[in-house]
Amino acid sequence: MVAELISGLEYSKKVLTDVGIHIAETRKSHPNFNSVLAIVQVGNRSDSNVYVGAKIKKAKEIGAEGRLIKLPSSITQGDLEREIKALNLDNEIDGIIIQLPLDCNNNIDADHVIDMIDPLKDVDGLTRMNAGRLMRGELQRTIFPCTPFGCLYLVQQATGDKNYVAGKEVVVLGRSKIVGAPAAQLFLWHHATVTICHSKTKNIKEKCLQADILIVAIGKKHFVKGDWIKPGAVVIDCGINVDEPTEEGKKSKLHGDVDFEAAKEVAGFITPVPGGVGPMTVAMLIRNTFEQAKRRRLHHEFDE
Amino acid sequence: MVAELISGLEYSKKVLTDVGIHIAETRKSHPNFNSVLAIVQVGNRSDSNVYVGAKIKKAKEIGAEGRLIKLPSSITQGDLEREIKALNLDNEIDGIIIQLPLDCNNNIDADHVIDMIDPLKDVDGLTRMNAGRLMRGELQRTIFPCTPFGCLYLVQQATGDKNYVAGKEVVVLGRSKIVGAPAAQLFLWHHATVTICHSKTKNIKEKCLQADILIVAIGKKHFVKGDWIKPGAVVIDCGINVDEPTEEGKKSKLHGDVDFEAAKEVAGFITPVPGGVGPMTVAMLIRNTFEQAKRRRLHHEFDE
Repeated sequence: MVAELISGLEYSKKVLTDVGIHIAETRKSHPNFNSVLAIVQVGNRSDSNVYVGAKIKKAKEIGAEGRLIKLPSSITQGDLEREIKALNLDNEIDGIIIQLPLDCNNNIDADHVIDMIDPLKDVDGLTRMNAGRLMRGELQRTIFPCTPFGCLYLVQQATGDKNYVAGKEVVVLGRSKIVGAPAAQLFLWHHATVTICHSKTKNIKEKCLQADILIVAIGKKHFVKGDWIKPGAVVIDCGINVDEPTEEGKKSKLHGDVDFEAAKEVAGFITPVPGGVGPMTVAMLIRNTFEQAKRRRLHHEFDE
Repeated sequence: MVAELISGLEYSKKVLTDVGIHIAETRKSHPNFNSVLAIVQVGNRSDSNVYVGAKIKKAKEIGAEGRLIKLPSSITQGDLEREIKALNLDNEIDGIIIQLPLDCNNNIDADHVIDMIDPLKDVDGLTRMNAGRLMRGELQRTIFPCTPFGCLYLVQQATGDKNYVAGKEVVVLGRSKIVGAPAAQLFLWHHATVTICHSKTKNIKEKCLQADILIVAIGKKHFVKGDWIKPGAVVIDCGINVDEPTEEGKKSKLHGDVDFEAAKEVAGFITPVPGGVGPMTVAMLIRNTFEQAKRRRLHHEFDE
């Protein structure tokens, strides 16, 4: 193995510990300070239950709070919108996320519901307002989407260089609203030369071979092969592809979008799946909630 | 000369004529229909006066209307904001643009003022809400920024293929809020593989040589050389660089960001400066105003 393994598990602990210290510090001067994340879950998907449980547990561990608002799968668009409005007005709530995908019997426009979140309580940067700010390079006025933020942080930490991204060739595979599209913007405004590839890209292997930093979020198991990687590149794998368990009682296995075994022989740095980007997303969600809590409760760093 | 010249002058006339026909058609069923663009100009820059005059003239020629709101260079941020609020509420106004740069004695946050424009009256796609929609690929819900829209239209018309962009390698030079950043998004969501280059890009010539379609908006006279162009590429030059006149009475000369004389020997298609992207921007502004007028006055095509 050539590549250095980037442990998202370890780095996420560091992020969470730091947020915990900052919360404790803030409470010294503001005893009632809190950092409360509201998680809106519609229905009862078992994978969502696991993710939601992890978020609440991680928040609690560092002295923050996660509150589950669990809604029936029979909910209507109107009722779901009213829930978001109530959370926007609730002075106790600092951040709001909607657990996706919705497990709902009715046809709900999830984009519209997400966009109803007050941009000041948006902790995943998915409202159009905050997405627009990111696209325009207004980094101080937006909040970074959790997964892309986790990717950026891992690159900076693994290379030991906060400015590592500047001037580098970054190739992003995928243009989803949650990962690919905002990751491209985030790396662009950290001064990378960014190329965005997707299902319509013709010479995707060639493009990958140019990447100093390769961000993969295409949702296909082992899509990126070992010989697509430029020697020494930083490879960040956002894929979470689940193998169904073949035997009862056996755990289902997770796979990334990158053929890890082959890629690690070529890359300079690489994230594993699981234990790479996944835990960073949760850590950044809790960190973003704290940032919004500071802005809203302490009028901190808010420049509008 | 190898390249086919793309005449923005001719194509812009076609766009404007079409809008004129649509306005006349609409008035048959809605006699009071109008399409009114409010142009907010602060101060009295002579170049701005020329641009504003052209917009009003072009609008009038096709049966639409441009209204100049000329404000003194002594205006404050607060007063300018109140002007925008009044235009938002004015039922007669379909589109609002702020002529940039502001010619103002006070320190005004132009981004903030632009963002106060009602997204339904935004005709340059520069509000954060509409920029966010563009970044997320919500093409039906946003309005395309005028210059990038003009670039896209020229590529489609010159090649005679509405889907020409899909699967092509597009390189955008520049990441400004008005041209480069939104152009990258617009071409991405028309399914190109997009690379965004800027001042921090290291191997910019190499990148340009990969481009099937090269969009240049970097603001430097003749920055792109002839040997940076892939043979047969479509070259769209958004640069407007002004040579000051050396003798009194002589007209100042405009130059693009591309070394046109050299590039036209290599490219497949190329826009001149002047007479390329410039007139398209004005045409798309008037077209966008008509689109917003239809949405707002006739509740047309508005899907939220």
